[in-house]
This record gives sequence, structure tokens and C-alpha cells, in this order.
Amino acid sequence: MVYLNGDFLPLEDAKIPVLDRGFVFGDGVYEVWRVVEGGLFEHARHERRLRRGIQALALDVPSKDVDALAGVAARLLEANELEQGEATFYLEITRGAAYPRTHHFPPRGTRPTVFAYVSRFDVPHAARAAGVKAITQDDVRWLHCDIKTVQLLPNAMAKQQAHAAGAFEAIFVRDGVVTEGTHTSVLGVKNGELRTHPLSPLILPSVTREVVIEVARAQGITVREQPFSKTEMLQLDELFISGTTTDVTPVVEVDGQAIGGGKPGPVSLALYSGLQQRLYSGSAVAHR
Amino acid sequence: MVYLNGDFLPLEDAKIPVLDRGFVFGDGVYEVWRVVEGGLFEHARHERRLRRGIQALALDVPSKDVDALAGVAARLLEANELEQGEATFYLEITRGAAYPRTHHFPPRGTRPTVFAYVSRFDVPHAARAAGVKAITQDDVRWLHCDIKTVQLLPNAMAKQQAHAAGAFEAIFVRDGVVTEGTHTSVLGVKNGELRTHPLSPLILPSVTREVVIEVARAQGITVREQPFSKTEMLQLDELFISGTTTDVTPVVEVDGQAIGGGKPGPVSLALYSGLQQRLYSGSAVAHR
Repeated sequence: MVYLNGDFLPLEDAKIPVLDRGFVFGDGVYEVWRVVEGGLFEHARHERRLRRGIQALALDVPSKDVDALAGVAARLLEANELEQGEATFYLEITRGAAYPRTHHFPPRGTRPTVFAYVSRFDVPHAARAAGVKAITQDDVRWLHCDIKTVQLLPNAMAKQQAHAAGAFEAIFVRDGVVTEGTHTSVLGVKNGELRTHPLSPLILPSVTREVVIEVARAQGITVREQPFSKTEMLQLDELFISGTTTDVTPVVEVDGQAIGGGKPGPVSLALYSGLQQRLYSGSAVAHR
Repeated sequence: MVYLNGDFLPLEDAKIPVLDRGFVFGDGVYEVWRVVEGGLFEHARHERRLRRGIQALALDVPSKDVDALAGVAARLLEANELEQGEATFYLEITRGAAYPRTHHFPPRGTRPTVFAYVSRFDVPHAARAAGVKAITQDDVRWLHCDIKTVQLLPNAMAKQQAHAAGAFEAIFVRDGVVTEGTHTSVLGVKNGELRTHPLSPLILPSVTREVVIEVARAQGITVREQPFSKTEMLQLDELFISGTTTDVTPVVEVDGQAIGGGKPGPVSLALYSGLQQRLYSGSAVAHR
């Protein structure tokens, strides 16, 4: 059961017009929430970022429709029996369908397309305990990666390269500098300090990145939001990726080269532990 | 009547699954052909570019499906009574729909989505005779603009800025250099020479641009495929945009500043005339 433009219906019946601008222009934004025991993790931050995206694209979405999303999620979780355990809530909003196809915006009154669905999320504990491999890829994305749009072809192509290489993630490098992963933030530890690319149009203002930084500070770790090069990345004491479905996942190998001795480091594990406390503190159920 | 995955059906019945990768990732390519008296103008070049795009994205599209497109166009033109006069043929191919949504490619065997439709095209003679206005916009697009993908959000946003400003086109400027328009190539004339950005990953290898360059050479005009700056653009003797639906359209004003005295120049008009001969030479019907 998914949500499409006010209706709840089976996924196989959820179809959009071929001239939806999401399909012909990639003209839309999206969000993915982590759901724990029926609750949307850090909902306020996701909602804030979504509203910024709607504004950046000048999508004609009433504020009350954004307000209503938590209710949509609740109904989807119930209908799909995902109120217990872990899940994800995916939302996409496009500028809607209009004929004729024009690059400029369609006539006022064109209704945006709102699509949402929920999925079971199985935490990949083993991969996180052992760490994952990554490759690097040229960051050829557009210059507004700070907006969470469906302009994701370069992300898909890079992730496929990782997948084909037996790696979990592709880490983007632009002009020699590490920006982020295809669907994750990239963070590292050097001499006990947490390092990551500063917020800029070149990276997504990731909710999980923000939480991990808060966790780090609460643990007394110095956080340096400064760009680091690919060469510096390979010399980090610890490297990890973070995101809504990756939490804190240690990266123990990049382009075939071991990072931090090829094992997850203590700071990464402590940050993961701190993130788990944030994730599961609202829940009455013991996890793991 | 449109075409979708082997079927011919009314536009309002042509719908795609919400998890089509065109919709969730912008994971697809497209083409637009000019159609004159039922014939696809420069079909071989469009087909070649399409095949390059399919290869660049590693879309699983059999070669024979590309071979069959001219037949699809013919049937659409007939069904829509567009065999006479002028029209456009739009084609989009995405990596298809798959659940679960993953950034990396879906399982082998996932069927690409193929969508096509035709539209009447009315040549805007008046605008071309008088010339059009343009604005400039930062070129924030990704670094593979040489592939004709549906990663078109920045194009849509920039074209909307032009539209809102009462201009016809937005001209992209990257690092001070003019690249191309949101759906056109940008060319100019200085001291009798034709100037335009060289082919590179920063611009589309436009079919019309290629034909215009051939027309220019046939007219004895020197062609210099060298980048020019925004400042140089404003000092050109003539400026024009070209494309499948723009042919050669003089630009007489950029950002409120007149170009070439604010009137279409003789070289632009001669090139348009030469392009028209190419467009209409296969036709028995006299065109303007």
C-alpha cells in the first residue's frame, strides 16, 4: 500500500502520467526518513529540509500538505504492518504533469505529484561491524547538491560502479576534494578529531551527519568541518559513511587500499553507539 | 495517441509505475526530432546520439528497438494526422521500474521504459524575424551535458527565470564562459566569423548546431569553435540560438542589453535560410 496524490493504493496500481515533470525533467524533491517503532526519526529536520527544497524549486505545495505528511506516514505504516521495528518512509514531490511539455513551469494550478511509501528496514549489523569497502568516483554532479532533488543519475551511475566492484559505496571527489557518497555523507577521524566536508552547495545537509556531529561534540570530540583531499582520506585513522539507512558505517577500504588498518576504529564505533542511543531512545523496545 | 512500451494509446492512459527510475532518479535519456512532411529530419544523427546515450548510461535497450523507432514515429504521425506539415517526435527511454528502489542498477531483465509522442509544431515566424530576448544564468548543471539525459531540473529552473523575465531563453555561463542555452546551442558572429563553444562534456552535441556549422562552411563562412566569455558575447556582431525547434533564432537582447544593434543580423538570416533549405529540401511543399 502506497500513497499517491491523496489516495492509498497498492504499489502496482500507483502510476503517474508519462508527462509528469518528475519523469521528463527530474523536476522534484524527495526525502527518506528512518522509522523506528512507528516514529519518524528527526522528523522536524527532515521536514525543514523538505520545505527548503520546495522553496528552492518553487514547487506549488501548500504548507498544510507538508504538515500532513506525518499522518500519511502513520497510515502507511499501519496499512503495511510496519508500526513495530524499523522501516523507511520515502516521499517524492514533483511539479506535476502538464501538456504540452515545456521547460518553463506549467500553468498555475498544475497539481504537484506527491508519492510516498514505506519499506521494512533490516539493519545490516554484520556489514557495519566488519566495515565496508568503497571506491572513489569523479563528482560530476550539478552544483546544487544541497537540495535533495531527484537529479540522481550521477549518483546511480557511481553507485553502480561501486556495486560492480563489490564495494558498498562510491565516494565522490571533486577537484581532488572528497565531498560525499552517492547516498551518504563521508566523515573521518584524524588524531582524534572528526573531519568532514563543511556544508556548502556541493553536499547535502544530511540529517544524520548533523546528528553524528552533535553526538561527537557530546562525546567531547573536536569536529572540524573542513574539506579533505582524496590523499588525506586515504591517510585518515578512521573513515565512515553516514546516512538515514547507513547510520555510522565504517569504511575499511577505499579503491583497494586499507584505511585505519582495515578495521572499524574506536571513534566510529563510539559515534555509532551514540547515534543508536538517539535513534532508539524514544523506543520502549530493546534493540539488538 | 502516444507510444508506451509497445502499445499505442491515448496520452491520458499512458502511465508509468511510480518506481520508474526516470521518476525517482532521472535515470534516462531522450531525443526530440523535427518532423517535416512526415520525415524525421537528420534521423541518422539523432539515432547516433541516442545510441551513444544508451551506451553511456548502460541502458539495456536492444539495438533493434532503436532501429524500430522510425516506424514508431511513422505510426504516431499517422494516428495523430501529422503526416503533413511540421511536427516534433519526442522519445524517452529510462532504465525502467524496479522494487526495491536502489541507486545501483536494478536486476538484469528489468525492462526499460520507452515512451514516445508527436506534437504539431508551429514555426514561430514572427519571433524569428524580429529576434528574441535572452537572459544569462549560472551554469550549475552536471558535467556530462554531452549526454542527452532527463537531468533537466537546472534547465527548467533557468528557462523559468527567462520566462518570468519576458525572455525566450536563458543562456548558461560557467566560470565566465558561455556554454549553451537551456534547450538550445548558442552561436555568434564576430567580424564575419561564426563562433560557438567547442564540443565538450559541457554542451550537448546538438544536431542543429552541426547542421548550421555545415551550412556556414558551405556559405564560405569561417567557423571558430572556441569558447567566448559573457563579455565577448555582449560585443558580438550577431548572436543566435539554434536547436530542433528553434532552427536559427536571432537573439537581439541579453540581460536587457542590445546585441548587434538590437536587430537580427545578415549572417544569422543567411544561415537560417540555409538551414531551411536543408529542412525543406526533401519536401514537395513550399515553406516560407
